[in-house]
Amino acid sequence: MAGNEIYDFIKEIFPITRSITGDGNRQTLKKIKNILPELKIHEVATGTEAFDWPIPKEWNIRDAHIIDESGEKIIDFKNNNLHVVNYSTPINRTITLEELDKHLYSIPDKPTAIPYITSYYNDRWGFCLRHDQREKLKEGNYDVYIDSDLKDGHLVYGELIIPGRSEKEILLSTYICHPSMGNNECSGIGVTTFLAKWLSSLEEREYTYRIVFVPETIGAIVYLSRNFETMKKNTAAGFVVTCVGDNLKYSLMPSREGNTLADKVAKHVLNNFVDEYDEYSFLSRGSDERQYCHPTIDLPVVSIMRSKYGTFPEYHTSLDNLDFISPEGLEGAYSIIKKCISLLEGNKSYVNQVFCEPKMSKRNLHPKEWHMRHLGDREDLKKRNTDMMNVMVYSDGKNDVIDISEKININFEECFEYIKVLSENGLLKSV
Amino acid sequence: MAGNEIYDFIKEIFPITRSITGDGNRQTLKKIKNILPELKIHEVATGTEAFDWPIPKEWNIRDAHIIDESGEKIIDFKNNNLHVVNYSTPINRTITLEELDKHLYSIPDKPTAIPYITSYYNDRWGFCLRHDQREKLKEGNYDVYIDSDLKDGHLVYGELIIPGRSEKEILLSTYICHPSMGNNECSGIGVTTFLAKWLSSLEEREYTYRIVFVPETIGAIVYLSRNFETMKKNTAAGFVVTCVGDNLKYSLMPSREGNTLADKVAKHVLNNFVDEYDEYSFLSRGSDERQYCHPTIDLPVVSIMRSKYGTFPEYHTSLDNLDFISPEGLEGAYSIIKKCISLLEGNKSYVNQVFCEPKMSKRNLHPKEWHMRHLGDREDLKKRNTDMMNVMVYSDGKNDVIDISEKININFEECFEYIKVLSENGLLKSV
Amino acid sequence: MAGNEIYDFIKEIFPITRSITGDGNRQTLKKIKNILPELKIHEVATGTEAFDWPIPKEWNIRDAHIIDESGEKIIDFKNNNLHVVNYSTPINRTITLEELDKHLYSIPDKPTAIPYITSYYNDRWGFCLRHDQREKLKEGNYDVYIDSDLKDGHLVYGELIIPGRSEKEILLSTYICHPSMGNNECSGIGVTTFLAKWLSSLEEREYTYRIVFVPETIGAIVYLSRNFETMKKNTAAGFVVTCVGDNLKYSLMPSREGNTLADKVAKHVLNNFVDEYDEYSFLSRGSDERQYCHPTIDLPVVSIMRSKYGTFPEYHTSLDNLDFISPEGLEGAYSIIKKCISLLEGNKSYVNQVFCEPKMSKRNLHPKEWHMRHLGDREDLKKRNTDMMNVMVYSDGKNDVIDISEKININFEECFEYIKVLSENGLLKSV
Repeated sequence: MAGNEIYDFIKEIFPITRSITGDGNRQTLKKIKNILPELKIHEVATGTEAFDWPIPKEWNIRDAHIIDESGEKIIDFKNNNLHVVNYSTPINRTITLEELDKHLYSIPDKPTAIPYITSYYNDRWGFCLRHDQREKLKEGNYDVYIDSDLKDGHLVYGELIIPGRSEKEILLSTYICHPSMGNNECSGIGVTTFLAKWLSSLEEREYTYRIVFVPETIGAIVYLSRNFETMKKNTAAGFVVTCVGDNLKYSLMPSREGNTLADKVAKHVLNNFVDEYDEYSFLSRGSDERQYCHPTIDLPVVSIMRSKYGTFPEYHTSLDNLDFISPEGLEGAYSIIKKCISLLEGNKSYVNQVFCEPKMSKRNLHPKEWHMRHLGDREDLKKRNTDMMNVMVYSDGKNDVIDISEKININFEECFEYIKVLSENGLLKSV
Repeated sequence: MAGNEIYDFIKEIFPITRSITGDGNRQTLKKIKNILPELKIHEVATGTEAFDWPIPKEWNIRDAHIIDESGEKIIDFKNNNLHVVNYSTPINRTITLEELDKHLYSIPDKPTAIPYITSYYNDRWGFCLRHDQREKLKEGNYDVYIDSDLKDGHLVYGELIIPGRSEKEILLSTYICHPSMGNNECSGIGVTTFLAKWLSSLEEREYTYRIVFVPETIGAIVYLSRNFETMKKNTAAGFVVTCVGDNLKYSLMPSREGNTLADKVAKHVLNNFVDEYDEYSFLSRGSDERQYCHPTIDLPVVSIMRSKYGTFPEYHTSLDNLDFISPEGLEGAYSIIKKCISLLEGNKSYVNQVFCEPKMSKRNLHPKEWHMRHLGDREDLKKRNTDMMNVMVYSDGKNDVIDISEKININFEECFEYIKVLSENGLLKSV
Repeated sequence: MAGNEIYDFIKEIFPITRSITGDGNRQTLKKIKNILPELKIHEVATGTEAFDWPIPKEWNIRDAHIIDESGEKIIDFKNNNLHVVNYSTPINRTITLEELDKHLYSIPDKPTAIPYITSYYNDRWGFCLRHDQREKLKEGNYDVYIDSDLKDGHLVYGELIIPGRSEKEILLSTYICHPSMGNNECSGIGVTTFLAKWLSSLEEREYTYRIVFVPETIGAIVYLSRNFETMKKNTAAGFVVTCVGDNLKYSLMPSREGNTLADKVAKHVLNNFVDEYDEYSFLSRGSDERQYCHPTIDLPVVSIMRSKYGTFPEYHTSLDNLDFISPEGLEGAYSIIKKCISLLEGNKSYVNQVFCEPKMSKRNLHPKEWHMRHLGDREDLKKRNTDMMNVMVYSDGKNDVIDISEKININFEECFEYIKVLSENGLLKSV
């Protein structure tokens, strides 16, 4: 099961302290490159303009803690990298609880969760902690220590182009900027990496695949600023891969108008291969579809998720951990996105090669004479025959495989199978 | 009532042993020609290729029976021509019950019905019988006898072209290949014949009418292989006439995408002139719409039926007999298809001949002054006035009679009447 | 409140005896001209042809009454001008009750209401009265007196063109042909006059405004016969202003096909700014949309009303008086149509000026960093931020303000506000 392999890989990358810049990202990309040796790693210097955004200074952190008057290290970055507000400036001072409190973040409603907080574009420092711990802090002085730096450096991202017969592209994009969280970060990296591995292993592909590992928002913007023209010309469909690790449900974030090939493919696959799923409005978007589907970019990109970011209580806290995700959850998302890709690869239109209905019995494709069918034929053979006739009847050169499948109430895999048989027998030909 | 005339004609043709070829078809076409003297009868030789299909050998049968050890003729073709599997090869042997049983067809669920079975493209012989009779057969020897032959010959079909002002055509197609069955065969021949008779009797017609009597499937394919180009160029709408004899319900088989003029006309007429009807999916097609609507042919053809083939228990058995159909059932289908034709004949678009609302009272078209209408006008006159204003207001040169009627909630016959008055008064003109 | 001003103006024009021609119309237009000094008053001579209609003779009436045998003036035109059938020929005779009765109009169901009756195109005379009064009339002789005349004269109408930056026009049309009735006449004159006053007071306008005061039907037809070409070329949207005075409900009469800019604007405003409204079918049309939306004219015109003509019991009777309408009712309609105009003035499409999402914090448009938003941000600021991002995301140069607002569930006034801020910050630009 791919889910197990993915889960094992996620265990490796989970502990790394990622942010929108920094060595954590380089380490993560190196782990990915172990699996995808062709991965290209790009570095873009601080200050570079990407559309409306400048690349910020690079942030690195080595250690951080809070020690109370008794000398106890009550907060230790080494225990959980969520304890430090991401992009915190360095500090090394003794301060009162009153002063410290202004720099603490916790969630009263979720007393056992360490929240995930960032401050990319404002210089500040802070610690995140469980609310039940915060409530027990006593008056007194605290040594606060953050060994971080913000310096000119680089934003790094990974890119893998897997060529296909056509220059038309399928985009898979995921992000590499969250520290130790499972569903809303590592699941996306894991599933994308193993989808790319599978794609690389195929003998041939119809489409070219563009696999992108970027820090969310700023990274996607940087990437688009460097690749927009090609992507605009070539992208046939794309998927933002995020929140693909839990085993609770499936979710779909459509494209801006919900009418692209990616939407059509995603809906067909979800409608046919999962029991149910939540279809969200684009108004509740939140990941890199914000950039890929922006009207100035307008690529045909959707996001198939398990539990969507922002909707599960563990989201953006220490509770979104390796227990929240599972091999089964990852396997589900992996296989659904794989089916979307398989469908895209074969989603052509076909035309009949003989006028009127063909004589199926001539080709041994007819289980029995039409008029004898009601006398004890095996139901599965009758259905197969009916389905094949229906595939031909909607193969008018305009309907694609999805249209045909949906008109005749089968799934694309069945449709592919029938088209294969009918094509081998000279009855259908792709346009 | 046309229904009585049709029913009497059906009594004449019911006993004939028809198949996809053979003298039964010639006899049936001769009966039709008695009513439609202009009918052309065409013969197409065995072996001729029609698209993907070869014309098979011609089948003729003179007699058949099974005699048991006691000398009793337990099955006699002369009693019911369904007793022999259609296209049975000849046989004259004495065989055991065990051997005979492999050649018997009956329906356990319908113990009193003789099933209708064919074997056009596999050489075999067989007998069909009531299941209650089959269960009583005793061990022993049986003389089985079928005096049939399969020889090079012809497939025959009938064709009548009734010219109209336009070369644009309306197609009526029915089939002549089933032996003694009422709804699923003879009703179609009867209704089509008398529709053609009515059409021939008209002083003039807008459309040209193509009336086709063919063996189902192979006959329609043969016919299309010889007439496709003209039909493709000219066909405005068409109807497969089948299962039009029972008095139980109305049914509609739409065209492949359900969006042709034939669909629009059929739905308007059914919605306005019958209490209710079953609209089927094209996925449950089964008659010659399989050929006429095939994507390689793609003609605007639907089928208005009473009880649809395959949906009534008597279907394809001896129970689909002269009692299952009735003059009332035939009359209903005849009149509905006639209304479709009448609608097609007059389904034009109109434009107003004066700007703004006309002064109706100038033309004596206004029951009373507009502002006095609420004081005791006769409701029917008020409705007539309102309907006429509404007909004009939707006569924009784009809406046809069906569009107008449906927008203003009247039926096409009312719409025709208003258009007539308005045109005579110089207020509307067809485009 | 504009409602009070409008109501006061209506009190001035309510007593005037208007008809489709006559001095009452001149007096009414003069009152309007007091408020709109630029109003042009046009006179069109009797006999002039306007499309299918001739201008009728001009009708004027000075006095009318019925006196019974006891010398009591039981009906007096001076008490209520509805007492005389509009366009009555003169009479001065003593007649029996039996003869008189043929000329009386009352409504049994509404015994206290004097009905409003007209006879524009048939020479007749008549009196209208309460049914309870009619039932008490005793046998005997009655002096009936109508001092009216029908002579060659003119039909008069008022027109005000208020220029805008564009020659594209918005039409406001109301009618001036009913005698003393409140909702179905004076409310329309009042609201239209004060909308025109407001429009004239604006420093600048995007659209040119065409304000039309005409007798219903014949006046609209006359007006169109003289201005159709320009109106056809320029009209972007229009409103028939009628029945805008009661405070009971809102109603919408759509255009003929319901798909014009006027429909879109009216629906957006009604959906967002009133609790509920009745949307009628164009089949129940009854005012000058009959001409403006006639297929030969086909202008994008709708009618936003309070209680629609014909639907309230007071309609076309003396009960539709100054008590039936109210400043609140007038204010409501005035403000809704004003909002429609405001929306039309600013209903443009916009395009983003930077690629991808902009960095909002750079422009102080971001309440807080995106990732800190879940920690105690003020909900209204979060909504404001989300709305602004959504406005940008649907600003693709194709969606107009209405499309954007409806896609993101805000009203056009909010959308205008966001667009203003975003445009001032260089993020959006109109196309």
